[in-house]
Amino acid sequence: MNSPAILDLAREARSTVDWWSRPDLDWNGANLKFAGRDVNGLARQFGTPSFFYSPARVLQNIQRLQAALDQSGFQGRSRINYAMKANRFAPLLSFLKQTGLTGIDACSPNEVEHALSCGFAPEEITFTNTSLSRQDFDRLSRIDNLRVNFDSQHAIGEWGKRRPGSRIGIRINPACGISRAHNEKLQYAGQDTTKFGVYREQFHEALALADRLGLIVETIHFHTGCGYLTPQLETWSKVLGECRWFLDQVPGLRNVNIGGGLGVPHLESDQPLDLNQWGEIVRSHFFDRPNLTVEVEPGDYIAKDAGILLLTVGSVERKRDKVFVGVNGGFNIACEPVVYGLPFQPVPAVRRSGPTQRYTIAGHINEALDIWYRDLELPALAEDDVLCLLNAGAYSSSMASNHCMRGEFREFMLY
Amino acid sequence: MNSPAILDLAREARSTVDWWSRPDLDWNGANLKFAGRDVNGLARQFGTPSFFYSPARVLQNIQRLQAALDQSGFQGRSRINYAMKANRFAPLLSFLKQTGLTGIDACSPNEVEHALSCGFAPEEITFTNTSLSRQDFDRLSRIDNLRVNFDSQHAIGEWGKRRPGSRIGIRINPACGISRAHNEKLQYAGQDTTKFGVYREQFHEALALADRLGLIVETIHFHTGCGYLTPQLETWSKVLGECRWFLDQVPGLRNVNIGGGLGVPHLESDQPLDLNQWGEIVRSHFFDRPNLTVEVEPGDYIAKDAGILLLTVGSVERKRDKVFVGVNGGFNIACEPVVYGLPFQPVPAVRRSGPTQRYTIAGHINEALDIWYRDLELPALAEDDVLCLLNAGAYSSSMASNHCMRGEFREFMLY
Repeated sequence: MNSPAILDLAREARSTVDWWSRPDLDWNGANLKFAGRDVNGLARQFGTPSFFYSPARVLQNIQRLQAALDQSGFQGRSRINYAMKANRFAPLLSFLKQTGLTGIDACSPNEVEHALSCGFAPEEITFTNTSLSRQDFDRLSRIDNLRVNFDSQHAIGEWGKRRPGSRIGIRINPACGISRAHNEKLQYAGQDTTKFGVYREQFHEALALADRLGLIVETIHFHTGCGYLTPQLETWSKVLGECRWFLDQVPGLRNVNIGGGLGVPHLESDQPLDLNQWGEIVRSHFFDRPNLTVEVEPGDYIAKDAGILLLTVGSVERKRDKVFVGVNGGFNIACEPVVYGLPFQPVPAVRRSGPTQRYTIAGHINEALDIWYRDLELPALAEDDVLCLLNAGAYSSSMASNHCMRGEFREFMLY
Repeated sequence: MNSPAILDLAREARSTVDWWSRPDLDWNGANLKFAGRDVNGLARQFGTPSFFYSPARVLQNIQRLQAALDQSGFQGRSRINYAMKANRFAPLLSFLKQTGLTGIDACSPNEVEHALSCGFAPEEITFTNTSLSRQDFDRLSRIDNLRVNFDSQHAIGEWGKRRPGSRIGIRINPACGISRAHNEKLQYAGQDTTKFGVYREQFHEALALADRLGLIVETIHFHTGCGYLTPQLETWSKVLGECRWFLDQVPGLRNVNIGGGLGVPHLESDQPLDLNQWGEIVRSHFFDRPNLTVEVEPGDYIAKDAGILLLTVGSVERKRDKVFVGVNGGFNIACEPVVYGLPFQPVPAVRRSGPTQRYTIAGHINEALDIWYRDLELPALAEDDVLCLLNAGAYSSSMASNHCMRGEFREFMLY
């Protein structure tokens, strides 16, 4: 056991290194740097609210994930499809296209067409979603070589009418799932029946229907959770075990799409996802099936920590027992903290020396829930300071609304 | 006590009348009618997803509220300002302008300018919000005769620099509040310190600052809750009692703005707000101040039940123990059920006879939380049926996003 003195030392060492720091996101003296730029300078040049994205970080995230797949034995037998609903900023999609390292996971006809407009070929795009309309089927079926995953007999039937003899995937639901601890809103599969996927009880009917329509089932798809980190991996492995049954029912299967859901740390208490352990789990379940290609569909894992949101402090004022920092952006342009309970760590672009202060960071939307962070110890802040919100690269601008007509923001790639 | 037989009869009578029915929203045989139109016909003519608004219902809501104010003794001493963040559809604002019965409550410079563009005069617009930026103050202060309510010393200071000698309001926070039962997200004022308003502890400093800057405080503003109904009125009265202290501190006060927050029923178990009781409470607190005009800022109460959202059923399919109805619209175009926990009652545009079925209504957004309603007993539904979601007139289109690129919808006024 460590002595109290050693624990004190460890605590002190920890307090000098911020939990979120990494080579491309760290202090240069008192100034925060991101992607080789001075963050305060970015705000002064380009204004706020603005999102800035680092293609270098995006690339690192992809390469790290691909390396984990390669090291687990899936070199040449794996494919990463970026889930574009996380962030569809066209320059970001164009960058991904040019890396040649990812395809696209799309979930609406508009998303498919947007991916095409950024240069992805139909065979690089997988479409997966539920509750499709007749118009959706019409639009999707016009595109030759688009890869599609359906999750209902209704969808299989509609596709069979329009594209008889084609290859499809079936999204299944293993009736168990994982999510970041205590977050019901991210529950894609689990004990309660969700709208997603074909359950075991209806799977043979779905296969028989595909067969009658001359459709060839080449992919089994599942998405079993969202935002998960290392502590959830053991459960994830059990979930994948449940999915194996479905694979066994489909002779000649070509692909297993294990969905996305890989999380990134949002809090000091979060540990990054252990990709070695993740890869080992994938290996343990699918390596014995040499004819299968493993597909992964990350959104968050690729884009989230490659993006920051810069806001300007308008006011710092005590109200009763709390000091509120008012900023010029609200939850309508980046809703994860409010809608999903995943806070964005706020970091001042310039770190003042001297005593810290406990702040609550408030947006400018006329709603009580519009709070970025509560009771956070930060270096002193003042009017006109720039605040950097981390992890704003995914599920932020793509979900932005013009609520209260406060929907203005800009986005920049930092090459 | 009623006998069981009488209770049975009452239950039967109730089951034949839907809780939401009213003269302009009811069945015509098997067909739902809204604002004198056949709902199914609207969907066939104009397509889905579409919002339809009834100006006649909007007018009724305003007149009912004004009548309650008049009957409580505030005839000629009261003003209704429609909170446009609830729904800023320009044809709706233009209609309100032409009724001559309401002003506008705006919460951003863009909203102020949008109200001006619809024809409201600056003196008909009150601006109220928090966390304002330098740019906000610059833009607001350019508009002569705009009525402004500020809720921090910082804001009073910034305004004083730009508009010395002008009249202002101060938004206060009584440190207690109400909201629809069990809904933390709607907590504007209460035990926890919120970002809104000047608290009692800082109120005299705020008044002194206004005085030093030559600003005349003509209005005390508070917004003490959201979505409240009759059962919450007793608490509301206590909250208003707390607010009276602030009024006593400001000699020569002209207006007391009691905010909005009046709710409408979302569930069968909700009873409509008792406006007589509401008016009696307003009277009991403010009638003894004959020099005061009472201002009210409803959003929901005016627009919510005057709007419906029509969606088309794409699929009806059993998944394990639940039957899912997939529709062509998701939470991104009307987020109240997901973000605020306030469900929209779904009603089929055409009511099939025969046995009912328990359905879960699912949107087409690729997220588990995108569910309109769970386990609701409805007449049988089939593909291509039109589903009408009630209470979609507020906090729906105004908060819409293009998440998953599923952001398309249209809006129509039904004169």
